[in-house]
Formats: sequence, structure tokens, C-alpha cells
Amino acid sequence: MSNPVLVEVQRGALTESRHRGSLAVVDADGATVLALGDVAAPVYPRSAVKPLQALPLIESGAADRFGFGDEELALACASHGGEPAHVAVAARMLARAGLDVDALECGTHWPSHQPSAQALARSGGAPSALHNNCSGKHAGFLCVACAAGVDHHGYVGARHPVQREVKAAIDSLTGIGVSEDACGIDGCSIPTWAVPLAALAHAFARFGSGQGLAPERAKAAARLRAAIAAQPYFVAGTGRFCSEIMRLLGVRALVKTGAEGVYCAALPVEGLGIALKCDDGGTRAAEVTMAAAIARFLPLPDEERAVLDRFVRPTLRNWNGVEVGGLRPVAPLAG
Amino acid sequence: MSNPVLVEVQRGALTESRHRGSLAVVDADGATVLALGDVAAPVYPRSAVKPLQALPLIESGAADRFGFGDEELALACASHGGEPAHVAVAARMLARAGLDVDALECGTHWPSHQPSAQALARSGGAPSALHNNCSGKHAGFLCVACAAGVDHHGYVGARHPVQREVKAAIDSLTGIGVSEDACGIDGCSIPTWAVPLAALAHAFARFGSGQGLAPERAKAAARLRAAIAAQPYFVAGTGRFCSEIMRLLGVRALVKTGAEGVYCAALPVEGLGIALKCDDGGTRAAEVTMAAAIARFLPLPDEERAVLDRFVRPTLRNWNGVEVGGLRPVAPLAG
Repeated sequence: MSNPVLVEVQRGALTESRHRGSLAVVDADGATVLALGDVAAPVYPRSAVKPLQALPLIESGAADRFGFGDEELALACASHGGEPAHVAVAARMLARAGLDVDALECGTHWPSHQPSAQALARSGGAPSALHNNCSGKHAGFLCVACAAGVDHHGYVGARHPVQREVKAAIDSLTGIGVSEDACGIDGCSIPTWAVPLAALAHAFARFGSGQGLAPERAKAAARLRAAIAAQPYFVAGTGRFCSEIMRLLGVRALVKTGAEGVYCAALPVEGLGIALKCDDGGTRAAEVTMAAAIARFLPLPDEERAVLDRFVRPTLRNWNGVEVGGLRPVAPLAG
Repeated sequence: MSNPVLVEVQRGALTESRHRGSLAVVDADGATVLALGDVAAPVYPRSAVKPLQALPLIESGAADRFGFGDEELALACASHGGEPAHVAVAARMLARAGLDVDALECGTHWPSHQPSAQALARSGGAPSALHNNCSGKHAGFLCVACAAGVDHHGYVGARHPVQREVKAAIDSLTGIGVSEDACGIDGCSIPTWAVPLAALAHAFARFGSGQGLAPERAKAAARLRAAIAAQPYFVAGTGRFCSEIMRLLGVRALVKTGAEGVYCAALPVEGLGIALKCDDGGTRAAEVTMAAAIARFLPLPDEERAVLDRFVRPTLRNWNGVEVGGLRPVAPLAG
């Protein structure tokens, strides 16, 4: 089965590149509102489920015990750019639990936010695990382990109690018990369990609305949603799609990117969840697809729609700033 | 028409992503040896034709007049990483023509070679147009203009005499007069004319063998091939696919990457040209496809084949260095 072309890249008079993919829009009852391509095949959700992976941080009582506010909770759901403010909050989360950077098992990379990487180099510094885009999530995992009084070493392993809690939360929200075999290792070394897009979208519809969730879980989801809406900068960073979209739409859209072209979203007011994957793993096409899906399903005043449209049809500029082309969603996505 | 899947990305037990594309392998007579997908559709060749774009630098006499050796000629064909040695040679080329960085019209970006970018930041520096991956090609264009005594200002424009020479060379090698309408603007602001993959592969078969070319053009192509084979580092840089493949194979393979998943190659001994495009523009899949095509059409001793196979089936490692998956070519590419 061949997934449809969802996004085209134009340059001059020609379509230069094409991205195929699949997309599921599902309501909190599990009814499919839109399905493009194969939405039943298992997909590694990667970082797109970080908001779901953060549920144990609240449900375990760890977030309260360590006095976490919106910044910490947003960073626990983040794929951040390693900007100084991101690094500072990650360090603060660890310190509250009596830990430091050495406890992180996510690995080290330079900040993806280029000005921050350049400033770090200019100061003679080098990156630490705090700069890893997942450091907030990992700090959250460590806090869950500490609050539960379990040894945090090896917390990234699929058999560690923290990852069992995380898997249980995702299984419960998606409504399916994901097979232990359908497991990959993520960039930050934690397990990523493959889930069909339709089930992922269903999970985000529930996460966004609270519908069908136990009261404590619905409360935890609402608290994470509020934190993310209040501090979208801490979920990604300067100029990043997730942060910009949520700065524009606030509580009306929760969006989260994952590696290899995955994107998930909740539209709480509409009671909808969205999950998509670009076949080839391309982030640029996943962003356009998500923007187009939001534009189609979220009623917006003209002014906000005009801002959103810049993400639906982004322009491409060359090194001299000359517009040379752009991306655009294609039917049937454009609706 | 849907191009076939050429490359799969594995993680754990699942195929996580898939790249479709098209590939043409053609001999110097224009006979198709292998065609996968649509090889008749026009494709912007982008930087993959830099070796062809450098022909006027030699044929005009500019390379001799300015005393260019292998390093300069290889850099004129390069998409380099902005490493210090690349920048030094680009500056030297300009100086020979009595010009400096201010004459470059390619725009500025940070070195793509990350250690070089970090070292530049650490020194308190900032990038110039010399760090642009195309600075060697642009220095070559400027030298052509200077040698011909034409005003170099605006040399990136499609109507400038330098670009007319470049287009004439490509038209001649591909054997087709590319329509003026099938023109996009490249990342470095020069025109990129769309050519079918089959014609691009034919051009590289001719460029690699000299067959069917006028004696002066065959000589110019041979000189560029020799320069590239002698100095593959200057065509890309440390750890880059083009440089590593040519360091391994020397005069037996000339390979050149282009943006948006284009790759071209000549296998001079076999008399073959290769041109491919990954539909989605993904470089990682274009590299695997090129490596697989070389492995299929170039007879190699076991030891070299084992080295090449690391590019045919590269592994993916996460931030802790753990192997989490890999890329692999799929039938019919694997042959």
C-alpha cells in the first residue's frame, strides 16, 4: 500500500520534491474523522508522545514534591533547542531531586538552536547532557524514580520501573496494549513502542479532552496542557514550529514533534486528536501537514488564520534571502 | 506514476521510514543500462552538476591563466564543508584573479562541518561568503568572467555570459537543449536548469569517458576528473560521502551530491554515468542509493567492497553511541 503525497516542494515552475505520509484525526470516542494513508500500521511515536510520557511525573506526586511549576512541566514534555533557559530549568529540576547532570543517561549533543551552539563555543564551553533536547524529559524520569524511592540508575531501560509506568500510561491512553516486540530504542536511549496512528490520535483526543480518563489522569493531563500552553517556549524554543503554533493558539492546540517525521496534536475544544507520519521521516513535511490539519479542523478568526497559513505554505529562501520556492499541502489534505 | 521505494530505514524490528526515488544508469552512447522509476521527468540537478559547470573554467583558459592546480579545480567542483583549508583555497582562487570575498554573490552561511563552525565561533569569528559550500564554484565563475574580460557583477544571473557558457556546456553534454522555462534558482543564487535523469546520467557517462566529446572538451573533463581524484577532500570534506567514496575508489568513480536528494556519478572505466533523485529530497537515502549503484556496477576486490558496504548499509547510532538501526537499499536497487 502506498501512502498519498501530502506535501509538495516547489522551485521555479516545477515540483522539485514530494513527501508521502499518513494522517489520522480521531475523536475522544475513537471515531475516525479523517484517515489518509495507512493509519493502522505501527509507527514509533518517538518524541511526539512526550506529553503522555510526562503523566507519571504528576500522577506519582513527584511534580508536587519537587515544587514544579509550568516551566518544569513544559520542559518535561520538550524537545528543546538547548538554549540557556532550557538548560537552566533542566538543571533546576535535577537539583530539586538532589541530582545533577551526571544522573542523565540521554547522551550529549550540541544545542540544535544554532545561536546557542555558537555562543557556547564562543565562550570556550562544550555541551553536556543538559543540552540534549530530551534533558527535561529525562530530568522528569529521574524525579519519578527518586519520588518512588527506586534506584534511578538504568532508568532508560525498558524494564526499569519508570519506563514501565510510562508504557502503562501510553497503553491506557491509546487503548491498546503495545506488544513488547514492537519496541525500538530512541535517540536518547529510552524505549519507543510502536503504535498505529489511529490509536495515537485517539490518545491525544483523550489527553486533550480528559474524556474517558480516570479523574486523576484527566487532572494530570489538564495540568500538563495548561503548563505547555503557558510556557510553549520550553517545549521547543526560539522560532520552532511547536512553540510558535502554541504561542499563536494557546490552549486550543497542543502540538508535539517527534523524530522521523512524526507529529501529534490535541485540539481540546474540538475534542480531536491528530497523529501523522511523513513516510520518509522529513520534519519539514510533517510540519506542513500538521499546520494544514489544524487549519482544516480548528475554526479560527481571519487574523490567526493568516498567521497559521505561513506554516501551511512556508516559503523557501536561499542564502541571499531570495524567495526560490515553497512547500504546500496537496489534496486531499488541503480539504 | 509512483517511483519505487529504494531505501528503507530500520529501527528495532520495524521499518521506520521509507524513501522513494528514481535512478538512471546510462552508457556513453546513451543506452539505458538500468532505469528505476521515472527517469524522463525533469529534475533540478542542483550541485550534482558542479563538475560540468566547471568545464568553462578550463576551456576558457582561465584555469591556466591563474595557475590553478588540483586543489583549485577540485574546489571549483565542490560542495565543501567550510573547513579552513577549503576557505583558504577559495580565497587564493579569488586573489589570483585580483578579487576578494566581496566579489562572491553566493551568500553566507556557517560551515556545515560542525567542528569548523565551532572553532570559528570559539575564535570570535563569523562566517563570510568564503564559508558558503559553493564558494569554490563561485570563485571559478568569477575567474571565467575575469579571463574573458567581462564585468563580473551579476555573474549569478541566468543572462550573464558566464551562466550562458555553463548552460551551453550542460546542454552539450546532456545532448538536450534545456528549456529556459525549466529553470529554478539555486541556494547560491545561480540558475539550475531541469534535466531528465536519463540525460544527466548520459552526460556523466560522456564526462567520465570523454566519448562523443570534442577533443578540447574531453581534455578539460579528463583534467577535472584527475584533479578531483587527486584531491577528493576539496570536493566535500572530512567524513563526507563524496570525499570518502572517491578516496576509496580514486579515478574509478567520480561522485557529486546535490541538494534535494540528487546524486550524479561517472564510472569512467565502465563507461557508465549514474543519476538519481530521492523523491523527498533526503540526502541519506540518495547516498545509500548511490553506494548501492556503485556496488552493483563497479567490479571491486573484496576488501574495497567491504569498505563500500558500510555506505550501502550504514548503521544508525543514538547519542550514547548505541546502534539503534540502519539504512538499507531494497530490491530492485540491490540487484
